[in-house]
Amino acid sequence: MTEVITNIQDMQRLARDFKRDGKSVGFVPTMGALHDGHLTMMRRSIAENDVTVISVFVNPLQFAPDEDYDAYPRDIEADTQAAKSAEVDYVFHPSVEAMYPGEIGVALKVGRLADVLEGAQRPIHFNGVVTVVNKLFNIVQPDRAYFGKKDAQQLAIIEKMVADFNHPIEIVGQDIVREADGLAKSSRNVYLTEKERQEAPELQKSLKSAEKLYREGERESKIIVEAVTTYLESHTSGHVDEVAVYSYPGLIEQQHIKGRIFISLAVKFSKARLIDNLIIGDEEID
Amino acid sequence: MTEVITNIQDMQRLARDFKRDGKSVGFVPTMGALHDGHLTMMRRSIAENDVTVISVFVNPLQFAPDEDYDAYPRDIEADTQAAKSAEVDYVFHPSVEAMYPGEIGVALKVGRLADVLEGAQRPIHFNGVVTVVNKLFNIVQPDRAYFGKKDAQQLAIIEKMVADFNHPIEIVGQDIVREADGLAKSSRNVYLTEKERQEAPELQKSLKSAEKLYREGERESKIIVEAVTTYLESHTSGHVDEVAVYSYPGLIEQQHIKGRIFISLAVKFSKARLIDNLIIGDEEID
Repeated sequence: MTEVITNIQDMQRLARDFKRDGKSVGFVPTMGALHDGHLTMMRRSIAENDVTVISVFVNPLQFAPDEDYDAYPRDIEADTQAAKSAEVDYVFHPSVEAMYPGEIGVALKVGRLADVLEGAQRPIHFNGVVTVVNKLFNIVQPDRAYFGKKDAQQLAIIEKMVADFNHPIEIVGQDIVREADGLAKSSRNVYLTEKERQEAPELQKSLKSAEKLYREGERESKIIVEAVTTYLESHTSGHVDEVAVYSYPGLIEQQHIKGRIFISLAVKFSKARLIDNLIIGDEEID
Repeated sequence: MTEVITNIQDMQRLARDFKRDGKSVGFVPTMGALHDGHLTMMRRSIAENDVTVISVFVNPLQFAPDEDYDAYPRDIEADTQAAKSAEVDYVFHPSVEAMYPGEIGVALKVGRLADVLEGAQRPIHFNGVVTVVNKLFNIVQPDRAYFGKKDAQQLAIIEKMVADFNHPIEIVGQDIVREADGLAKSSRNVYLTEKERQEAPELQKSLKSAEKLYREGERESKIIVEAVTTYLESHTSGHVDEVAVYSYPGLIEQQHIKGRIFISLAVKFSKARLIDNLIIGDEEID
């Protein structure tokens, strides 16, 4: 049975009961519009924990005024159905008023990890993300929390917050879940026109061309970035916002590749900015 | 038996065990140099909870470079003895390196509540306080945490953080504990010269004169502030840093007193800046 919880105190009481009963709790925070990427994480959480909680909350703090907060797809009925079909135990779905009842007294500010990539494009975004995730962690008190590797910068920032704040939580990064044609699943894919949807798999193909270069021994970021950019420009009608090579999870831009890196790209279509990435190399260097 | 825990993961494992065993945990965070104010909170925590944890950690982040971080009294042996005599269960005493192993990725920043009073004097102070208290809360995971009302602004800020962050913790404010002559207990009282120590009880007397005015119906802050300032200037050799009337816990400066307020003062002696305060009025207005 899937139960929907809207009250923060009710969720905290449940969290306390789970701990008293020695039950492990897995948590998948979402903004709803659940897709196979979310479902994969839910199923994994169910397999790895005694209880699985998902949250469905479109967090106003992580949208800038010119972004798609109002337009962001919201369908709690469909999301609850999806959670039920996956046999999630609890859907935590608080109101904006309950989560942000008034003036914020203690703000969270992400440092240099948010100065690059998505963070450079969206200056308040990651401050909003950590603000809500920190709250959700204290409400749900999970043992494990699941985040997709598609938002690799977000994952790195959440892991840093958990270390900084000593949250007793294991962060689990979920490999990117893709459509059959290779497009990374995203709630924002619905914004694509038909033509853009047809072009969108080229994002992954551009990363595969980068991976091929890397496997052949290429270690100059510039060469890889140019190859990916050229590929995207010639195979899609979108505007290539950024192609970059950064260390992972330290997020330091790399000229000469060493250790674990990630190649990330962002392409702006008419109504959707899509991101994709590839993490390569075993050894963390920072 | 009082046990000293230095390892963060050990403390978190204990916290998890307490929750699984359904034991309530009381927590008294301290910077050591334990005095009767701390002991009062420890005894109260022991009475109100199944398990009592204190922390002893001089937090570098809450001291500015020109403040007394290096000189701050440290004597873990004496503190452990005091904790034993009070029958505290656990003393959590981590190293600075364990608490701050490297670059901070997600910073905490207190908003307008830190712009006044002590916060105006010590611009980074409360950011450091909330940073360490948030960490300690996630490490100790208490049901109740005890803070002294002497640091009334700190208490208001901690309560705001707990509300903002949804920490499932009840914050208990402890009335100021005083020496027989009325001086509020403080770890920094050891910095006073003999003559200053003799004058120090005048701080509370000045607040009593303010209370008398208030009880007689005075509601103009200016009159009360002037009376307290004049009293302090004529009865001590210290420099009167600030006398002010603020709403509590909203910390909005009051011209015409309404609802619950606090009258706070800070007097600078040769090597110690002492603070004291009085909270009056039942109804919270903000």
